[in-house]
Amino acid sequence: MAHYYDTEDLEDFPNIVEFAIDSGKRFFEYYGSATGAGRLTEREKALIALAVAVTQNCPYCIDAYTNKCLSLGVSSDEMMEAVHTGAAMMAGITLAHSTQMRKIIKKKEM
Amino acid sequence: MAHYYDTEDLEDFPNIVEFAIDSGKRFFEYYGSATGAGRLTEREKALIALAVAVTQNCPYCIDAYTNKCLSLGVSSDEMMEAVHTGAAMMAGITLAHSTQMRKIIKKKEM
Amino acid sequence: MAHYYDTEDLEDFPNIVEFAIDSGKRFFEYYGSATGAGRLTEREKALIALAVAVTQNCPYCIDAYTNKCLSLGVSSDEMMEAVHTGAAMMAGITLAHSTQMRKIIKKKEM
Amino acid sequence: MAHYYDTEDLEDFPNIVEFAIDSGKRFFEYYGSATGAGRLTEREKALIALAVAVTQNCPYCIDAYTNKCLSLGVSSDEMMEAVHTGAAMMAGITLAHSTQMRKIIKKKEM
Amino acid sequence: MAHYYDTEDLEDFPNIVEFAIDSGKRFFEYYGSATGAGRLTEREKALIALAVAVTQNCPYCIDAYTNKCLSLGVSSDEMMEAVHTGAAMMAGITLAHSTQMRKIIKKKEM
Amino acid sequence: MAHYYDTEDLEDFPNIVEFAIDSGKRFFEYYGSATGAGRLTEREKALIALAVAVTQNCPYCIDAYTNKCLSLGVSSDEMMEAVHTGAAMMAGITLAHSTQMRKIIKKKEM
Repeated sequence: MAHYYDTEDLEDFPNIVEFAIDSGKRFFEYYGSATGAGRLTEREKALIALAVAVTQNCPYCIDAYTNKCLSLGVSSDEMMEAVHTGAAMMAGITLAHSTQMRKIIKKKEM
Repeated sequence: MAHYYDTEDLEDFPNIVEFAIDSGKRFFEYYGSATGAGRLTEREKALIALAVAVTQNCPYCIDAYTNKCLSLGVSSDEMMEAVHTGAAMMAGITLAHSTQMRKIIKKKEM
Repeated sequence: MAHYYDTEDLEDFPNIVEFAIDSGKRFFEYYGSATGAGRLTEREKALIALAVAVTQNCPYCIDAYTNKCLSLGVSSDEMMEAVHTGAAMMAGITLAHSTQMRKIIKKKEM
Repeated sequence: MAHYYDTEDLEDFPNIVEFAIDSGKRFFEYYGSATGAGRLTEREKALIALAVAVTQNCPYCIDAYTNKCLSLGVSSDEMMEAVHTGAAMMAGITLAHSTQMRKIIKKKEM
Repeated sequence: MAHYYDTEDLEDFPNIVEFAIDSGKRFFEYYGSATGAGRLTEREKALIALAVAVTQNCPYCIDAYTNKCLSLGVSSDEMMEAVHTGAAMMAGITLAHSTQMRKIIKKKEM
Repeated sequence: MAHYYDTEDLEDFPNIVEFAIDSGKRFFEYYGSATGAGRLTEREKALIALAVAVTQNCPYCIDAYTNKCLSLGVSSDEMMEAVHTGAAMMAGITLAHSTQMRKIIKKKEM
């Protein structure tokens, strides 16, 4: 049975310039600048990218940044900690929004 | 200073039919059926809707369904439990996707 | 061709403690408390979790909570109603935000 | 009481280049190319951008693209139709994922 | 190995009415109205739907609307431009929210 | 006019334990472990949390982690780079999913 999320799709990512060359090239220039070493190191940015990939449920980027982290010498424990930071934020964002619910409940109780 | 999220916007919600009457009416027919009592009770659906509202960061719907839950006699404790179920799912979804990272790490380790 | 979303990944979920034991254990303690029976029943929380899973597009959690609902005796009709509550909320959240667009249009019209 | 979503923040958007000039400039080059006229007209892209803004719950972009649509002569009815297309997709995406639930239910029923 | 995202699931989409006939039918009536020709053409709505599908990471809808665009004579270049509009919006929404960070930084600096 | 996103709500965040003490306490134990110093430093985790906050459009967490970064001596330039990494990932995730569209187009072209 065919499936949508081929692991081979990732290799096609550089080819997305094909149907829209100008936008594609400009995207890669932005992406390169935003994920390459700057004030933050490549390692710091790879950990950030991994956390964003996993909180956005993007298999392609989880693959790409797990491999990038490994190639930069990031340990499994460090990667898993980045994932937990992301996961705890996801729960925290939901709970932070529950303060809006609490305000309404408290106003009604008065 | 003006702000985007007016609490008064919620009262405008029934008026969204204005610029697209047909789609607007059909939406409300679907919405009424999907959130009104059926096999599940109105109370069960209000708790589900509250959890979706808070996991989607929608202040309008947090307001609407906190009030609906209160009007249906749902207690503050029950509402907060629904929020925690949602929050724990958000963290769990991120962590479930980390199994994709773990597979790649384990393959490399071999 | 290899694919990212293996149904077998779900069995690996309890093992995510491996690279970050402390955070992993605390997550499962939170998750257990937030999805287990409390003021809300396990059945009510399973329906909430199913709705969050499907509105977040998480195949792992759709699998886990479809099975949990079935094991708790939730019928197919009840599960599908929970899904529709979630789906109608997703459309409703988008339409609720269109009140912001309407305010701008109306201000310009004056 | 202070609030997070100032309508004035939108005017600050061009200034985000300030702390990261290179990435900021490359972003705006990409953004200009991706939202400016190409094979698709500026009008078509403004409608797409409006639908993405409203399905992502971004007040800043709802403001920016409502105004852009108005300046391009897009009518209120057309804008509201773009919103409904987005809203119906949001419900549809949730329901499309319920096919994964249905497969599990049907397997169990056999 | 089994996987979650079968390409065949898409054919099951019309069958989702099965366990909740009333809500299912009303959804399809709304969906038909919201994605069918109106003030906006079917082509314009298909491009909007494609952009929403791809920004929401929904493989089923990417499949459905790529095929719909092709059947309506939309070119590969036009489709890719719609994708870039969506992608640039996603980056832009994140950067627009960084104005909230900038305000806090600037207040502290004073 | 009242608004939903009060900046004062953030101070209420520690009080969310109120209506569900057990789940609330366990959440904060998990959150403390996941965002506190471990194999990754508190600074690295604060940058990750900031990027997740801004890609999730959460004003409360943007506030909390901008302030945490500042208190840890992270510079404005470093914070803005973390934001750009997040923003570029958001565009990249959308474009990575366009490989699914490209496969369908290419199959039809043959």
